[in-house]
Formats: sequence, C-alpha cells, structure tokens
Amino acid sequence: MTKAFLDTALAADIAAGLARVETLFESQLASEFPAVNDLCAHVERYRGKMLRPTLVLVSGLAFSRDGERLPHAHDIIAATVEMIHMATLVHDDVLDEAEIRRRGETVNFLRGNETAVMLGDYLISNAFHLCSRAGDPALNLRLGEVTNTLCEGELVQLSRRHDLALDENTYFEIVRRKTAVLVGASCELGAKLSGASADEVARMRAFGEQLGVAFQIQDDLLDLLGDEATVGKSILRDLEKGKLTLPMIMHIASTKGAERAAALDAIERRDPTALRAALARSGSIQGARARAVSIVEEAKRGLPATRRTHSRELLLELADRVVARDA
Amino acid sequence: MTKAFLDTALAADIAAGLARVETLFESQLASEFPAVNDLCAHVERYRGKMLRPTLVLVSGLAFSRDGERLPHAHDIIAATVEMIHMATLVHDDVLDEAEIRRRGETVNFLRGNETAVMLGDYLISNAFHLCSRAGDPALNLRLGEVTNTLCEGELVQLSRRHDLALDENTYFEIVRRKTAVLVGASCELGAKLSGASADEVARMRAFGEQLGVAFQIQDDLLDLLGDEATVGKSILRDLEKGKLTLPMIMHIASTKGAERAAALDAIERRDPTALRAALARSGSIQGARARAVSIVEEAKRGLPATRRTHSRELLLELADRVVARDA
Repeated sequence: MTKAFLDTALAADIAAGLARVETLFESQLASEFPAVNDLCAHVERYRGKMLRPTLVLVSGLAFSRDGERLPHAHDIIAATVEMIHMATLVHDDVLDEAEIRRRGETVNFLRGNETAVMLGDYLISNAFHLCSRAGDPALNLRLGEVTNTLCEGELVQLSRRHDLALDENTYFEIVRRKTAVLVGASCELGAKLSGASADEVARMRAFGEQLGVAFQIQDDLLDLLGDEATVGKSILRDLEKGKLTLPMIMHIASTKGAERAAALDAIERRDPTALRAALARSGSIQGARARAVSIVEEAKRGLPATRRTHSRELLLELADRVVARDA
Repeated sequence: MTKAFLDTALAADIAAGLARVETLFESQLASEFPAVNDLCAHVERYRGKMLRPTLVLVSGLAFSRDGERLPHAHDIIAATVEMIHMATLVHDDVLDEAEIRRRGETVNFLRGNETAVMLGDYLISNAFHLCSRAGDPALNLRLGEVTNTLCEGELVQLSRRHDLALDENTYFEIVRRKTAVLVGASCELGAKLSGASADEVARMRAFGEQLGVAFQIQDDLLDLLGDEATVGKSILRDLEKGKLTLPMIMHIASTKGAERAAALDAIERRDPTALRAALARSGSIQGARARAVSIVEEAKRGLPATRRTHSRELLLELADRVVARDA
C-alpha cells in the first residue's frame, strides 16, 4: 500500500493501524482448541487487500486532526468488518463449490462443507462479539442491519440464479446489498467514530457504497477476463453457478438470436475465449468497465472535504485502485 | 404447555409472553423480498417446544413480583435465543444432510445447501440485530460469547467425527458448548433482566446448562430408540454421520471384541434393531438414561429459591420434561 501514499505520517498511521487490526483479529479468534485455531490460521491466509479495514482507518483519520491517534473503537470496527468479510468468503466458497481462493485451497475443498459452514459461523459470531467489545449499542445495531442486508442480497441472488430475465436494476439492487453496504459502513463508521458531522457521515457512506458497487463490477470482469494465476481463484465460476454478472446482463439485453446464444453456449462449454469474443462483439465488456469507472468518478465527486492533510487524496486513490486492480 | 401449569396467572403470563415472542420473531425477519419471506415462513414451521424462550420468560417471572409485567428486554432475548437456535437447526441440517425436520422437509433438501447456508446466516445476523435492539451492550457481549462457544463445540465435534477414541469427558465438553451454554444463557439472562442477585443468576445459569446437557443426552437416546414418525426426523443419523452419542461412547468403553463390533456393524448396516440389542446388552442405553436423569436431579437440587409463586415448581417440571420427552 505504502508506495502510493502521499504523506509519510498518514502512511505510518495506517500501517500501524492495520498491524493493530491484525493482532486484534487473531486474538479475537484464538481458541483453547487446536482444531479451531488451525482453521482460523487457514482463513487468515485469505487476507488480501484489507480494503474494508483500510477504509475504516482512513475514513477515521480523515476526520481527525493531524497527529491525533484514533480511538480503539476504530480498530475494533476495522477488525469486525474484515471478519464479516472473511465469513462471507468462507460461506461463498461453499455456495460456489470453489476449490481455490487466493492461490490456496479453500476450507470446503480441504475439510468439507460441514467444517466450512461452521467455521463461517464461528467468524460471524466472533465478529459480533468483537463489535460488542466497543460497548456502543449503536455500532451493534448498525452492523446487524448491514449483515441482515448482506444476507438478503445473497438470498435474492440465489433465488434468481440461471434467470436470464434478471435486469440491470435488480443486479444493482443485489450488488448494493451483498457487497456495497459493508464497504459503505466501513467509511461511514470510520468517519462517525471520529466525530464527523451527519452530512459528512452520509457522504462517506455513499462514497463507500459506490466503491463497493464498482468493486463488484470489477470482480465480475475478473471472473470473465482474469488470468487464473493472477486472480488467484477459478474464473468463469460466477457464470457457471448461474450468477449473472454485469457484462453478461448487458450482453443478454443488447443481443438476440445466435449472437445471444453464442455467449450462453460458451459458458456451457467452459470456453472463456469464445465467451470473451461474444461479449466484446456486443460491447458488453467495454460497457461494464465504463459503468464501473463512471461510478468511481461519481463517488470521487461526492467525497466530502476532510480535516486531516492528504487523507482525501488517499481516499481518491483507493477509489481509482478499485477499478484498476487485476486480483 | 398449559395443562401442567400449577398457577393460572403464571400460565397466562407465559402464554402471553410466548405470543409476543412469536410476533417479535416474525417481524424481525420480515423482508421486502418475497423470496426471503418464503424461506423464513418455512423455518417458522420448525418451531417446536420453544424451550429456550420459555426458560427466558419463566426465569424472568421467577424473579419478578406477582402481577409485575416483564420488561420488553425479556421478549427480545427470548426471541433472540430462539432465532440462534433456529439458525443452528438450519445449518445442522446441512451438516447432517438431513431431509426431514419436524415432519417437514428441510431447507437444504427443498432448496439446496446454498440457500440453507445463507438462510442460516440471515437468522444469525437477525438474532444479533434483534439483541442489539435492547440497547444493552452487555447482552450482545454475553450472547456473542455464547455463540462463539457454540460454534467451537460444533467445530470440535466435527474434528472428532468417526473417532472411536472419543471419551466421555470430551463428549461432555462438546455438549456443554454446542447445546448447554445457550440453554444456560436463557435462564441466566431471564433472571438477570429481572434483577436477580449475582448468586441467583449464576445458579440459574448452572440449572440451564445442566438441563441442556440432559436435553442432548435425551436427543442421543431418541436418535437411537426413537420412532421416526414421533421424533419427526430420521433416526440413527448422528451415528451414521460419525457423531458418537453417549450410549455409543459407553458401549465402546465397556465392551471389546465381538460385542463391541456388533454395534459398529449394526450402524454400518443401518440396522436399528441389532444396534439397540447390542447397546442394551452392554447396559449403555440404561447407563445413558440414568446419567440424564441424575443430571436433571442435580439441576433441580441447585435451583435457587424464587420470588414469584409457583414459578419454581414450573422450572422443576420443565426439567423433568427434558428427559421424559419422546420428540
């Protein structure tokens, strides 16, 4: 992360914060049972970009004064949102029958679905327990609302699998719920815990939600275009599992007959080259990419002024990275 | 429930409380998405004895004055513990590949494992959100601790599947975690929210945990001896899935050679008659039953004096029912 930071003091604060978050994450999950600790150690290997905890910390620092240290509640919320995210990864891998995650084997592949289901539950439970340690009922209430919404998004997505009539509006409704609300809450709560105004908090939340939507579209594009070794997980998995991604929805909406069928056949045959060609011909890949970029631009325009030096530039840069990433 | 109540006013209070809990349970889960509501309606059919919410209410009334109405927090906690319990049923059915629950088809059987995993998550999330609505961070912290422990119990049990060396001590450690802590917390929090003393709260928790352990042993016996139509779910499922139950652990510890193998072969062949015969010969069925009864007797002896008329008799009667039930 550090290479692009504009301000050494800010970079140091974030690096120190993320180190505290990792320690808190690990100590929260520590069990007296080696069998449980082994599983949690495996999950910690899934940790990648730490996007959500980074957003909590940067959003917190953005509304602090230079040199002011973040209160402990930021670390708690940062570790909590990451733990919620890890729980969704573990359960998503069960749903997707995924074998690979971040270049390593998934828990369900190594240890069976039963263990993966229960490990995900252990992570969810610990996320709520950790959040309760902040002693602020409003935080529990808000994060409970976020995870309710997240699960609704997943359930609606499951209920619409293989449904070629799924339109863009419904797609964005699902994505807002299953991905964007947690990213939005990361920005919102980071700012709120640093004393940002109601308007600033609302704008930080909107910024985070837009980042979350763009992040999901980029995930959709990586599922289609990514190089398996770089992405670190199987590609075309979303489409094979009947999850319609934005390029596919755009393709279905804009084509008919043989052109439309070419993409569906390519999924069936697991032929990424033919699929990419069909979606490029209909302009759907370019369309989805343009949509992600325009959402990021909108997010950046809506970002409120911040108190601390350089933190706004960093948030703008994080926004750009969401659509520039290849993993 | 009412037939055995000794006191009409108490019976009326509990019936009214359970009706409020059901309403709260349903309104908490209500979603704007019909797909989500359909699934929740299915889960509500699993609701059976309402043991945990009943214990919250009776434990609350036990430390209230006659005629005093329970505060809303009791209803919230009663609905929360039931929702946690429902979440464990939905995920347990995935783990057990169960097809039948309370005489109806399971969510995983009807709608697939993916939907059952996500529906369980929706229930867990809503349980924490509902609990947060009480506005008391100590409740969130305590219930988070309870569900952490519960998941640890399940994970340890999974890690010891098919392990014939599992001893009684480990069995009781697992059962305390996966079943007893939630029942214990139901009694503990009910009493605590009514202003019981620290000693009374601790004794109510111990009472509940002992009931929970006895409840699990009775479940083990029903898995072995139950009539499928009465129990409402497949029997021998625990043993087939490699979960050692108390009668089986006692059998393995007290037999060797052909006598020991007879039981293992009977599980393999799905022959309940031969299995029951082997376990009866080794005294393991009688042994497990005696153990459950003695735990209930110990629980009853430790029950503290209560403030409200007749509530203590009702708690004693609920304890007896735990080991008398056939479903």
